[in-house]
Amino acid sequence: MSDTSGSTAPAGASAPAPLISTIDGDVPDGLLDAFDAYEAALAANDQEALADAFEDSPGSLRADGNGLLVGHEAITAFRGRRGVAPSRSVVQRHIRVLDDGAALVVSVNAPASGGRGVVTQLWRRSAADGTWRIAVAQVQAPTPVFDTRIWRVVGAPLVPSSADSAAADALIDGLGSADDESVPGPLTGETVAVKDLFAVAGHRVGAGVPSFLSEQDPAPFHSPAVQALLDAGASILGIAQTDEFAFSIAGRNSAYGTPPNGVVPGAISGGSTSGPASAVALGHVSIGLGTDTGGSIRVPASYQGLWGLRTTHGVVRRTDVLPLAPTFDTVGWLTRSASLLGAVASATLTGVSASAVPQQRPVESSFVVDPRLLSSLSEGVRDAFEGFLGASIESGLIDAPAEVALGDIAHLYELFRVIQAAEAWQSHGAWIEAHPGALAPDVSARFEFGRSVTPSQESAARDELEVQREHLEHVLADRILLLPSASSAAPSLTATPAEFDRIRSNTLGLTCIAGVGGLPAVSAPLLEVPAGPVGLCLVGPRGGDLALVEVAAALAA
Amino acid sequence: MSDTSGSTAPAGASAPAPLISTIDGDVPDGLLDAFDAYEAALAANDQEALADAFEDSPGSLRADGNGLLVGHEAITAFRGRRGVAPSRSVVQRHIRVLDDGAALVVSVNAPASGGRGVVTQLWRRSAADGTWRIAVAQVQAPTPVFDTRIWRVVGAPLVPSSADSAAADALIDGLGSADDESVPGPLTGETVAVKDLFAVAGHRVGAGVPSFLSEQDPAPFHSPAVQALLDAGASILGIAQTDEFAFSIAGRNSAYGTPPNGVVPGAISGGSTSGPASAVALGHVSIGLGTDTGGSIRVPASYQGLWGLRTTHGVVRRTDVLPLAPTFDTVGWLTRSASLLGAVASATLTGVSASAVPQQRPVESSFVVDPRLLSSLSEGVRDAFEGFLGASIESGLIDAPAEVALGDIAHLYELFRVIQAAEAWQSHGAWIEAHPGALAPDVSARFEFGRSVTPSQESAARDELEVQREHLEHVLADRILLLPSASSAAPSLTATPAEFDRIRSNTLGLTCIAGVGGLPAVSAPLLEVPAGPVGLCLVGPRGGDLALVEVAAALAA
Repeated sequence: MSDTSGSTAPAGASAPAPLISTIDGDVPDGLLDAFDAYEAALAANDQEALADAFEDSPGSLRADGNGLLVGHEAITAFRGRRGVAPSRSVVQRHIRVLDDGAALVVSVNAPASGGRGVVTQLWRRSAADGTWRIAVAQVQAPTPVFDTRIWRVVGAPLVPSSADSAAADALIDGLGSADDESVPGPLTGETVAVKDLFAVAGHRVGAGVPSFLSEQDPAPFHSPAVQALLDAGASILGIAQTDEFAFSIAGRNSAYGTPPNGVVPGAISGGSTSGPASAVALGHVSIGLGTDTGGSIRVPASYQGLWGLRTTHGVVRRTDVLPLAPTFDTVGWLTRSASLLGAVASATLTGVSASAVPQQRPVESSFVVDPRLLSSLSEGVRDAFEGFLGASIESGLIDAPAEVALGDIAHLYELFRVIQAAEAWQSHGAWIEAHPGALAPDVSARFEFGRSVTPSQESAARDELEVQREHLEHVLADRILLLPSASSAAPSLTATPAEFDRIRSNTLGLTCIAGVGGLPAVSAPLLEVPAGPVGLCLVGPRGGDLALVEVAAALAA
Repeated sequence: MSDTSGSTAPAGASAPAPLISTIDGDVPDGLLDAFDAYEAALAANDQEALADAFEDSPGSLRADGNGLLVGHEAITAFRGRRGVAPSRSVVQRHIRVLDDGAALVVSVNAPASGGRGVVTQLWRRSAADGTWRIAVAQVQAPTPVFDTRIWRVVGAPLVPSSADSAAADALIDGLGSADDESVPGPLTGETVAVKDLFAVAGHRVGAGVPSFLSEQDPAPFHSPAVQALLDAGASILGIAQTDEFAFSIAGRNSAYGTPPNGVVPGAISGGSTSGPASAVALGHVSIGLGTDTGGSIRVPASYQGLWGLRTTHGVVRRTDVLPLAPTFDTVGWLTRSASLLGAVASATLTGVSASAVPQQRPVESSFVVDPRLLSSLSEGVRDAFEGFLGASIESGLIDAPAEVALGDIAHLYELFRVIQAAEAWQSHGAWIEAHPGALAPDVSARFEFGRSVTPSQESAARDELEVQREHLEHVLADRILLLPSASSAAPSLTATPAEFDRIRSNTLGLTCIAGVGGLPAVSAPLLEVPAGPVGLCLVGPRGGDLALVEVAAALAA
């Protein structure tokens, strides 16, 4: 091995950086030229040259902080949506020659925007045309300070648990010493991502809309759902992003971007509890606190392989939570394990902070399905769902679910859609009228629909909602409805608006059932299709929240 | 290429994750066993097995988010200080066989703590003992939400610029519309890391000490130095870490850890403006706002290849900045470019917010050196300093500096040390006495020294300080003193306490000159030694801050 230099370039020096370089073996002809040409193509954002620099093979690999892409097609699609990479200079290059036609090159680069990046590339000379191409690359770009697609503000922690705050207060008052140990709560050591709809004392609520945020005052108190977690021993790590006014289930946000899906590279996060979901999936925190109006807990749980609970409508107080559609709005949580989901629900629903909450009730492990709900599923989801049921019945885990007829699903969805949109407009219409252009077109269109709903249409829908609620209660008869949490795995970021619309409608056809009934629902990460995970959804009777988590956990065993 | 599976494992599912695996070529005997054994050694934190898994060669490479380590020795040292890696399961494995004795393996893992990691490894079979070992590895662990060694709280942004706030206020008052364009300021678009000593309205000051932080109330106003940057158009990205009560130049913090050096993997950041320095070096922000009592801007600038300015004592108001030693405390900034450093200084020193500030004055490019300052430099620093001077003289950039005798450097340092420690104890002694054990041993020892200084010792030191100040002013005679910013490149995190002490003393022997004189000083990233960058320091006359940055920029040309 030869070492051609031994110095480090200072960041920001104006002179060209000296190159540290080590070489093991005889560098084959053409390799260095190919390396330099690739850097030049990056600088010029020459898509064609970049695509040609990778072997045109389904076995080509490219990994970065967002995950691993397999195959030339996936790699090229990524480049198309990335845009220009920041300019960078190579400050170290280490070559490990494998043979005359293959070499590994590890390089360190200094982006003009600061920090250092590292790239490992396997270069191979094509037998066909003699050209050097990349077979495998792993790219480490400088880590941004934090991912603003996921988070709006974070601290270490942002808000300490109530026990930690009390210890500090006692110190100030001379009532304790630094050695005092407080009694651990059920959530001691857990960390929380709070969806940006909940009041966190001292912070403003942003609802995913920067111009809305900029006009708010800091909240004087925590929302009860936030306070309950703090009282149980958890600390708040930060305030996480949401779809604009939470009026979406995709997770896309026109101002902050789409949080990355923690398990499917290049896929959307699911929303509207998008930031907390990605934060939990990526291991930033253990608990995501969010809301679910029409699927905003269940859909991101489904897309990112998480456990999620949408609570019974009304059991968690929504004081100091920005509303979307109060008839359907509920509080919920996301976790990576069923046991923690149960602990969070228990701490909030039975803790001292929740004394006004209706009693929880037991739920039998008696399941039903409605085949009509399985008609609009994407490829593989129906098979995965039926396969899971079949295996669970065969293994004796469950009895065969009874078939029920919930009614006309399209009719239920339409009722939900009309009332949701009308209430959303009542919640935010005045602000939206005063701020033209503040929202993404798809979200704006949904609010516009809400504006168009007449009082008589709304009144008729409310009457019919009562009828359908009673019907649902009668048909379900305290049993648990099983269905997929979403109509598909997480779609790609590159889906068209029409595709997103179709997927949204199909998924809301599933998720609106719990919305219409005001029922609790668990999404459990128990199904999977080639495109990624899908949740198994359990919809239970009102007040059966805690029992439902236990039943779902048993299904995962 | 064969594709043995096509599914993605949901995070948090309790069943073993199915493996996606693609293979190109015939997998050589023993490779998969070696791969599995390595994962097992990681899980067991078996240091010996891990060290043996890498080729014992100076050419072995290992890269992760902290940078690239070259050579088996560096890699093994890293493992020793890392501790146990979180447990993880491999969910994808892609093998690219190069020949019977070499293969690239790219694997995706799912840590129990969430997220996904990617590892690329070049495995080679040893010709000597037939064992498969890793020659090159690049490791991408899940990105933590943010680096709490660097930051305490961050937002998107945490505080918008004054122009952005005004636009929001105008909207609320009905005085403007969302389309209003505000006039850009000189720092529009720039982002700031604020050292955790400055008041940021709505946030507490933590001073790098969690138990101190927990007892503070949110600040009602911004410190003037913060306000000046906001008024010039910059936004505050967050509050960054500092050494405990800023009483160190190393950057190590016993509660939050040592911020990573942005350019030298495994080295300390320099302090006490440690968090802002790493944030600027890593490209998190463009501006670091800090303080410099005995080198707390210049040392991290030197260690991380940044531009830094310690201002003339008193020219930037220190209202609502936590003091260390008011006789020496100054405000300063860190940037990646001389031009931005000049813009920041100009905006603060000549902006409307700073109307009470003394006039700035011009400075001649007339340089002096004191050979006595070069006696305690680490390997290579003296050569680099003299080499830079020689080259600059030869190229006609500067005239040969005159030699001056500043006096007994050890005496100056002792004066500085006594007064600094006495004032530090006056600033924080009462709190420290009430909180035994709250500080790291080295910081605590320095405060204890301050406690031990008697009033008569302090008074004598102050009298002598006046004498030495006049002497310095007389000797320098409005010329610019050139010296290295620190006695060495950034030392390794693994240095012993005795080594840190020695490096601290040697560097303070250089940096105390500006402290004693109350003089402005620029650190410019213009020197380098094998271990990393070193700053060239320019110490100028009082009030020559802006001119000094211009002179330094000319030296870099």
